[in-house]
Amino acid sequence: MTLTFAAPSNDKAELEIGSAFTPRFDEKGLVTAVVTDARDGELLMVAHMNAEALALTIETGIAHYFSRSRNSLWKKGESSGNVQAVQEIRTDCDQDAVWLKVTVAGHDATCHTGRRSCFYRTVGVEGGEPKVTISDERRYFDPKLVYAEK
Amino acid sequence: MTLTFAAPSNDKAELEIGSAFTPRFDEKGLVTAVVTDARDGELLMVAHMNAEALALTIETGIAHYFSRSRNSLWKKGESSGNVQAVQEIRTDCDQDAVWLKVTVAGHDATCHTGRRSCFYRTVGVEGGEPKVTISDERRYFDPKLVYAEK
Repeated sequence: MTLTFAAPSNDKAELEIGSAFTPRFDEKGLVTAVVTDARDGELLMVAHMNAEALALTIETGIAHYFSRSRNSLWKKGESSGNVQAVQEIRTDCDQDAVWLKVTVAGHDATCHTGRRSCFYRTVGVEGGEPKVTISDERRYFDPKLVYAEK
Repeated sequence: MTLTFAAPSNDKAELEIGSAFTPRFDEKGLVTAVVTDARDGELLMVAHMNAEALALTIETGIAHYFSRSRNSLWKKGESSGNVQAVQEIRTDCDQDAVWLKVTVAGHDATCHTGRRSCFYRTVGVEGGEPKVTISDERRYFDPKLVYAEK
């Protein structure tokens, strides 16, 4: 990793209209990453990146994240083959989030449950209680087989 | 606000396939909210919600967030008129993020800079330095006029 990020300016205008990409990592050193399919814009997942993951993503064109549960760098698709080739990276007005438009290799699926997107459930209310109902049941791979391979 | 959320299960399978919506608020009491335009899926913004904002959003059908900079409940569009009517809410496999598909009222714009989306800049590298270039310069409103009205 050779790419480094300068500290963000305290000047809001500089963050919004300046030419420097100075991500505003939070107190844990992370920015939010929103990942959509470059083909049709479908939301695939939301994850987090530290400076190393973000630099590796920019330099290699392959999406890397920081796994908060494993507390380590995470090359998405390393186990499943569902690697994400990054077509475009955008950032938002205050530079605390990035948007990756990706092409998914392997099974063309992103969720570890085997589905195309992690957002396979719709939120609603039933009998006064917040509920989820499955909107997408199609599986692109069998997690038991794919994650057992390692 | 009458809707309350039960604590998330420690059982991963229950979180992934159960019928209860039990958002996994982080240590600050927040989940990530990804907001897209219900018409064409364009990513408009990323924000955060506490339990109150999430309940209000579900109950009223109008997007509410928690402003981390102001440390308070935030009804999006209260100043600008660019209120978001929620068409669908989804959640992801581990229930720590929600996806709102919205219809934007007012100027049909979401970013406080007057643009349709907060993600108006593309990230790249120039001379070894991380840079941003503006991909969307179109303004739907003049922030000086809109935010001065208050």
